[in-house]
Amino acid sequence: MKIGVLGTGMVGNSVGSKLVSLGHEVKMGSRTVNNEKAAAWVAQAGERASQGTFADAASFGDIVFNCTAGAGTIAALELAGTNNLARKILVDIANPLDFSKGFPPSLSVCNTDSLGEQVQKLLPDTKVVKTLNTMNTYIMMDPARVPGDHDVFMCGNDGEAKAQVAKILREWLGWKHVIDLGDITQARGTEMFLPLWVRLYGALQTADFNIHVVRAPAAT
Amino acid sequence: MKIGVLGTGMVGNSVGSKLVSLGHEVKMGSRTVNNEKAAAWVAQAGERASQGTFADAASFGDIVFNCTAGAGTIAALELAGTNNLARKILVDIANPLDFSKGFPPSLSVCNTDSLGEQVQKLLPDTKVVKTLNTMNTYIMMDPARVPGDHDVFMCGNDGEAKAQVAKILREWLGWKHVIDLGDITQARGTEMFLPLWVRLYGALQTADFNIHVVRAPAAT
Repeated sequence: MKIGVLGTGMVGNSVGSKLVSLGHEVKMGSRTVNNEKAAAWVAQAGERASQGTFADAASFGDIVFNCTAGAGTIAALELAGTNNLARKILVDIANPLDFSKGFPPSLSVCNTDSLGEQVQKLLPDTKVVKTLNTMNTYIMMDPARVPGDHDVFMCGNDGEAKAQVAKILREWLGWKHVIDLGDITQARGTEMFLPLWVRLYGALQTADFNIHVVRAPAAT
Repeated sequence: MKIGVLGTGMVGNSVGSKLVSLGHEVKMGSRTVNNEKAAAWVAQAGERASQGTFADAASFGDIVFNCTAGAGTIAALELAGTNNLARKILVDIANPLDFSKGFPPSLSVCNTDSLGEQVQKLLPDTKVVKTLNTMNTYIMMDPARVPGDHDVFMCGNDGEAKAQVAKILREWLGWKHVIDLGDITQARGTEMFLPLWVRLYGALQTADFNIHVVRAPAAT
């Protein structure tokens, strides 16, 4: 499959490399056609990897992963272009973290709105599926590095798009537990988990963790 | 021990009954000295249970549990009285859930402040420990109803108070995993988990769940 990856940071690198390793053709998009970080990634990721502008990557992909930092997501998607993303699935991994006052970050949008909703509003003809935004990028792409049961959340307005993303999560990446929370407004829930995530990162002194939702047995 | 419980709802009932069952004397506080819900609780909880105003319960307790709804917490604590709570541990279980626009609720305070911090500011001489606010009240008081490993978070400014509350969580209630997140500002993290909790409640069609933080093995 042809896949566009928007963003050249840790998440874009890790997502792009994983998808290339699975045999897909991946174009990494950034503000400029000759971004140095994208070029370095292409050099190490091999022949199925390429780079271009946000618009190039969006146009290239049959499916597109938003791996930009939350603070730059809307600007990046505007550059990617509504038409280039129309009718496609956009897997939105970004979180609206605001580091302007240091660590821990606050959220630039939350509570009665979310970045996922803002993305869906910006791209009404795109099937936005918010997922993978509640754990570090190494666990996203390799859930087996955390032992036992743990979960990934997913939300979006299009049922078929979510079914396809769930298949990607399970069959490509190896996620065992995919919890569908409902429509894109549920992104408020997963994005607002980040303030707890960053505090767990501080308390545990590692980012290498995920959460598992453990249920009580049903009453009989 | 003498314990004050502020609030007559499901959480106050469940916390009060559990503490009575452990042999403690518990006074349930509300706005009025003869609150009907408190009277019903006293009638079923037995001779170690009593009721009174918020001030009566705060004055009675060697330790006090805030089990009020978040929307009424500050007003309840003002009635409880700064002096009645001075130098005591206040176990703050409340969440700032705003149901004014229906379900799912938003938060009345979040992101750059929290209810836990507002409570600590209101009661500077009280040792506020925020905990037990991330699961339903039956699991709070009986973590064994959820099988296997799952966690409770705790934060507050006073280390000795947190050590005492951790002992209560472990030895009185049976919590196996108590994660100390740090000072009271970390309440932003646990309170902002609630928007995800309410969505999990919707998706799973049960409130009988909790989360476990699962770590990857340390790199060798």
